[in-house]
Amino acid sequence: MKCKKCGRKAVANLKAYGIALCEKCYPEFYRNLVKRSIKRFRILRPEERVLIAISGGKDSSALAAVLKELDYDAELLYIDLGIGNYSEESERVVRELSSSLDLSLNVVRLRDYGFTVDDVARKMRRKTCSACGTAKRYIMNRFARENSFDVVATGHTAEDIASFYIKNVAGGTRVWAEKLMPRNEPFDEKIVTRAKPLFEVSEKENMLYVLVNDIPHTLMECPHAPNPEWKEIVYDIERRKPGFVKNFVRGLVRPAEEFEETKYCKICGEVSSGDVCAFCRLRERLS
Amino acid sequence: MKCKKCGRKAVANLKAYGIALCEKCYPEFYRNLVKRSIKRFRILRPEERVLIAISGGKDSSALAAVLKELDYDAELLYIDLGIGNYSEESERVVRELSSSLDLSLNVVRLRDYGFTVDDVARKMRRKTCSACGTAKRYIMNRFARENSFDVVATGHTAEDIASFYIKNVAGGTRVWAEKLMPRNEPFDEKIVTRAKPLFEVSEKENMLYVLVNDIPHTLMECPHAPNPEWKEIVYDIERRKPGFVKNFVRGLVRPAEEFEETKYCKICGEVSSGDVCAFCRLRERLS
Repeated sequence: MKCKKCGRKAVANLKAYGIALCEKCYPEFYRNLVKRSIKRFRILRPEERVLIAISGGKDSSALAAVLKELDYDAELLYIDLGIGNYSEESERVVRELSSSLDLSLNVVRLRDYGFTVDDVARKMRRKTCSACGTAKRYIMNRFARENSFDVVATGHTAEDIASFYIKNVAGGTRVWAEKLMPRNEPFDEKIVTRAKPLFEVSEKENMLYVLVNDIPHTLMECPHAPNPEWKEIVYDIERRKPGFVKNFVRGLVRPAEEFEETKYCKICGEVSSGDVCAFCRLRERLS
Repeated sequence: MKCKKCGRKAVANLKAYGIALCEKCYPEFYRNLVKRSIKRFRILRPEERVLIAISGGKDSSALAAVLKELDYDAELLYIDLGIGNYSEESERVVRELSSSLDLSLNVVRLRDYGFTVDDVARKMRRKTCSACGTAKRYIMNRFARENSFDVVATGHTAEDIASFYIKNVAGGTRVWAEKLMPRNEPFDEKIVTRAKPLFEVSEKENMLYVLVNDIPHTLMECPHAPNPEWKEIVYDIERRKPGFVKNFVRGLVRPAEEFEETKYCKICGEVSSGDVCAFCRLRERLS
C-alpha cells in the first residue's frame, strides 16, 4: 500500500476517506482534518485562550499537540483524581507532554478538595464514573474561570459522542443528549464555554497521530472504568457500516434545510417540495 | 414458566417488562400496552375516523385487530403495489383480515396510476424501496383526505423507529430524522395526520398477539426488500442491552424538563441544579 500523496510506503489506511498515507503525509492530513472541523463547526476562535483538559491518554494528547501546531494560545490542565498507579503514570506522561510541546501544565489535585476517586470507589462503588465526571467538570470549569480562560477544550472523539448520544437517548431524553455539541456556549456567566475540537475525529486517527509524531501518551486504562459496552456497540456498527460514526456525529449537528413555503404539484395538486411532486415524477418516468 | 397473572402455562416471556404470560392473559396485556401508549403520547383521539394502512404483515394486522378491540371508528386501506406473488398473497390475507375483524377494506391499485413496484424494480433497480415509500405515502394521504379520514395509522414498530432514526441521523440530519414521531400533525391542509400507535411496541409483541389471537397475517417478505441491515443492528443492540429499543424510542419523544432559573450552590457558589451542587454533596459525603 502506497501513500496517495507521495508514493512512499503507507502507514495509515483511512477507510472513511478512501486514502492511504505515509508517516510524513499523515500528520498534515490530520492537522487539516481538525482545522477544517474547528472552522466548519465554529469550535474555537483564533483569539481565544484555551485550557486543554488532558488525561495522558491518546485522545487528549493528540488534541494538545494539534492545537499547539495550529498555534492556539493554550495551556494544559491535568486533574489528579487520586486513582493509585493510574494517576501516577498519567501525571508522569502529562509532564513529558508539557515539556515536549512547550505548553504550560496546570495540575489540580482532587485530594485538595478532601477526597479522591479511589475513595468514591471504596465508599459508593456503583457511582464511581458518574462522581468522577462530576468532579472533572467542576474542576475544569472553576479552574478555567478563575484563571481567565475563554474556553475548555476536551479530547472527546466521534466514538465518544455517538455512543454517548445513543446511550443517553435510551437512558433519558433526546433533548438532554443534544447538549453534547462540538461547542457549548454558557448559559450563565459562571460557566466557561466547552469545546470538543476532535468531535468528528476517530480514536484511530488520534492514535496514528500520536504514534507517528511520537507524542507522549499512556495506554493504561482507568481501573474503575466499566466495560465500555456502548463504545463496543458503536465500534460494531462502524464495522458493519464503515463511515457510520463520522456521519452520525455530523448528522447530529447539521442544521435542517430552510423551511420553504408549501408548494403544490402542478400535475396532481398534492403538496410537493418542487414544481412536480415525487410521485408524479415517478409516474412520468415509468408509465 | 408460569403466567404471572393466573398461573397457567406461559407462552410469552416479556423481558422488557419482566413478566411471563399465558395465551389467555397476553392479549389483554398487549391491548393495555397499546392503549396506554396511545393515551400517553396522544397518538389517537377517541372521536377520530382512522384509516389503518395494512400490508398483510404481522405488525399492521396486529394494529388493525387492536384498534378494532379498542373500538376506534376505523377502516382498512390496502395498497396493491403490483409485486407479483407477494401482492397476491398479501391481498388474500388482508381480505381474510377484513372479514375476520369486520372492518371495511379499501383497495387502491398502484397500476391504476400507470405503473407497479415491479416496473420500478426493473427500470430503476437501486431506488425501488424509496420509490415504493413515495407511492405508499402519496396514496395513503390522498385516499385518506378524499375519503374524509382524520388520521392514517401505520404499523411502524419500536424497531422501525429506532433503526430509522439511527440510519437517518447518519445519512442526513437529526432534525430531519425527528419527523418520525408517534403522531405528526399536518403542516398543510392537504396533509392528513399520520399516527403510529405501535411506536413503542416491539415486533415480537405484535407477533405473539397475532399468533395467540389467530389474526390473519402473512410471513412472506417483499422480494425487493434489501437486507434489513439497520434493523439487524438494532436487534443486536437489544440483545446486548435488553430494553434498549423501547427506552430509545421513548427517549426520542420525552420532553426536556422545564428549564428552571439558574441557582448557585450555597457552599461554593458555583452553578447548581439544587441548593448544594453535586460536587459539594460528594465532598460532604466523602471527606
